[in-house]
Amino acid sequence: AMEKSYMSMFLLLVAISCALAKDEAKKETKETTAKPKLPQTLSRGWGDQLIWTQTYEEALFRSKNSNKPLMIIHHLDDCPHSQALKKAFAESKDVQKLAEKFILLNLVYETTDKNLAPDGQYVPRILFIDPSLTVRADITGRYSNRLYAYEPTDISLLHSNMQKALKLLKTEL
Amino acid sequence: AMEKSYMSMFLLLVAISCALAKDEAKKETKETTAKPKLPQTLSRGWGDQLIWTQTYEEALFRSKNSNKPLMIIHHLDDCPHSQALKKAFAESKDVQKLAEKFILLNLVYETTDKNLAPDGQYVPRILFIDPSLTVRADITGRYSNRLYAYEPTDISLLHSNMQKALKLLKTEL
Repeated sequence: AMEKSYMSMFLLLVAISCALAKDEAKKETKETTAKPKLPQTLSRGWGDQLIWTQTYEEALFRSKNSNKPLMIIHHLDDCPHSQALKKAFAESKDVQKLAEKFILLNLVYETTDKNLAPDGQYVPRILFIDPSLTVRADITGRYSNRLYAYEPTDISLLHSNMQKALKLLKTEL
Repeated sequence: AMEKSYMSMFLLLVAISCALAKDEAKKETKETTAKPKLPQTLSRGWGDQLIWTQTYEEALFRSKNSNKPLMIIHHLDDCPHSQALKKAFAESKDVQKLAEKFILLNLVYETTDKNLAPDGQYVPRILFIDPSLTVRADITGRYSNRLYAYEPTDISLLHSNMQKALKLLKTEL
């Protein structure tokens, strides 16, 4: 029991993800009077060979229509945890390959849908949505205080969570 | 009076913009199992040198924060009217220059905000939003049946409408 509680504390301390997306976004906005690095892509570095949707509405529509689960990655350009996860995500051949089976969306601004923030608006944060448009709140990472956060070392857990998300809710019933 | 009503009919006939975005989007979805032309950009061809926002939430946030008006272009890849307007928009130096003073968003999927479709969800459709987050429904094009549609020949009207949008509501009061 002692060992387990040390472990929990460890995981809690590790999960230093970035501040509220809203606050970070505010900071970012002030810095964007300069020209962006062109071209601005929908992938934003999470996999240039993958097909990315632009908006949440588009992603929901495509998920429902294609019967593919939706994977939503909330991140921020000036968050080192987001950047590190992005690098691991983009460099993992297994993850990139499996990602082709998803409708994909990466967002630097929060939507107004509170279902996308079951335990807060931190980044990085990865959520899966079933084509029946149900948020898969049951698919979580390693950190009890930020259930949908992943560190670069969690890539294989993320991969197995992606596999879990591909088993659609409908077919399970 | 006779001449004027002919003119109205002419304008009505000219304004053959594309079908409801929602229906077109459905068609498009079925065709996108193939890989996209890489990289997918946020500009989508409306001005690669301009800064484009990704989502409506981001655009509203940036407009309010920067006190710049927001210009939203609804369009579709498989709509020839959208494509023709895009070409004229991207090739007009005056429009591209003035566009730098706006927060910019181009969308191929409708948002859930009905304020963005004052007279329907046709494309192409251009709406201006004041930094006070008021839709400028008063800034319209030439076509009485589709008030926010523009043809490629309407580029100078669009340019003067952009100038109108830059006179913010707050400063007018």
